[in-house]
Amino acid sequence: MKIHTLTIVGVGLIGGSIGLAAKNRGLAQRVFGVGRNQARLDRAEALGAIDAGFLDLIPVVRESDFVVFCTPVDQIADQVLAAAYACASGTIITDAGSTKGQIVKAIEQRLPAGVPYVGSHPLAGSEKRGPEHAEANLFQDRLTVITPTSRTHPAALERTTSFWQALGSRVRLMSPQDHDKALALTSHLPHLLASALAGILPPELHDLTASGFRDTTRVAAGDPGLWKAIFEHNQGALLTSLIALTERLDQFRHVLEAGDWPGLDSLLTQAKKVRDALGS
Amino acid sequence: MKIHTLTIVGVGLIGGSIGLAAKNRGLAQRVFGVGRNQARLDRAEALGAIDAGFLDLIPVVRESDFVVFCTPVDQIADQVLAAAYACASGTIITDAGSTKGQIVKAIEQRLPAGVPYVGSHPLAGSEKRGPEHAEANLFQDRLTVITPTSRTHPAALERTTSFWQALGSRVRLMSPQDHDKALALTSHLPHLLASALAGILPPELHDLTASGFRDTTRVAAGDPGLWKAIFEHNQGALLTSLIALTERLDQFRHVLEAGDWPGLDSLLTQAKKVRDALGS
Repeated sequence: MKIHTLTIVGVGLIGGSIGLAAKNRGLAQRVFGVGRNQARLDRAEALGAIDAGFLDLIPVVRESDFVVFCTPVDQIADQVLAAAYACASGTIITDAGSTKGQIVKAIEQRLPAGVPYVGSHPLAGSEKRGPEHAEANLFQDRLTVITPTSRTHPAALERTTSFWQALGSRVRLMSPQDHDKALALTSHLPHLLASALAGILPPELHDLTASGFRDTTRVAAGDPGLWKAIFEHNQGALLTSLIALTERLDQFRHVLEAGDWPGLDSLLTQAKKVRDALGS
Repeated sequence: MKIHTLTIVGVGLIGGSIGLAAKNRGLAQRVFGVGRNQARLDRAEALGAIDAGFLDLIPVVRESDFVVFCTPVDQIADQVLAAAYACASGTIITDAGSTKGQIVKAIEQRLPAGVPYVGSHPLAGSEKRGPEHAEANLFQDRLTVITPTSRTHPAALERTTSFWQALGSRVRLMSPQDHDKALALTSHLPHLLASALAGILPPELHDLTASGFRDTTRVAAGDPGLWKAIFEHNQGALLTSLIALTERLDQFRHVLEAGDWPGLDSLLTQAKKVRDALGS
């Protein structure tokens, strides 16, 4: 895998980490960053995540052979289409958005011929934002889901797979719909739960929280605007997951109300087995 | 604060950390450990958490001037009472249990005259167990709640306060009931939620979890037996907290179902403010 000009649109934690990883591993001859905020682009350049930063997308993608969008999920489709109509034939476009169904569908409906787009989602990141939190090894041994459809160009799929693997990531292929169903449970529901729990903590109890509360609510510090857009994109699957969780909470409530301590023990033991299997 | 013989009953993560902190800070001339498992006592001694380990509680407490129980909450009251009837007059007994109402009540009903007991709960620890996870600075800048009642001896309260402060902890006084209400929300409910979320993860989605799911469910790896006993002790307050959480989840469900994105943004923004205020 060799790229001449890699362009990263959105140089935050994910985009910045892609830049650092690509430059550390010699994946691209040059790495360009595109964003709306000159100061943030300058920080990304100073940190070595990009070689140069630009405010205008179109002139940069014209010179690029691989473009990855790391912008909020509600902006990706429009930005990808704008880039697709401007770039040279053969330029590969992918993204790092946390939802895939709406994005892939919106793009494939209007994608020009000759410019392949492949949806991606690296399962990495944190509640933090900005290139100063970027890490060159963010993708090392993590999983990236790539979401081809019947319209995905096989060579572009292969090249996108190689791209994420070159950054250190494992790759798994799923349909956009299966990705969104899975991530509703593994990522979006945890965020909703963390927000619900943090949200009911009254100020007088702040001092009585310890690592348990802090771990369980950590992701609630994520950007509300980004997560609102993710929830909106994945409304149906997230509601399904929330209902499954509510049913499990009802089981806990029933054993507690009934004083069914063996029943409580079973629920806690089953959960511990799952959590232990995930590792730290 | 100077102790001649400090005895720690239960030399796991908390008990072992008390021993390491007491020895590092020169708080006691000697530190004894009591437990049911000789191998674990030997490990605690090898790690420097205790000077000597014993399987029998009664002979050791006869020689002790300060005894702290770090055993499961459903064992503390009986063990404290057994020790109280054996130890010399003036020996101070405290504990590190995660619940206080039932423990303090059961002890105060039968406590012999001349042996003061003071309930304590250091808000520190993790889902891990055993003296090998003990840390000398576990209590540094953390909060210990001490739960005096109208029957608590003032000098014993003062000495127990000095004990935890000497280990590096801040101290706050609360009634046993207020402690349990607060911890239902700040510790026991997070555990229940983490267990509910981990419990509904099917095996085929394990590989699709990232740091968000792992943080949110981390405490579910805790020992089910210990947590069953905590939930049983704090049944009423935990149910009240669970109902408050369920109501907040219903609000999330309603805004999602209605597509009320400004409403969703408000919920996420309010939660972020709370979580940001807690720090890392």
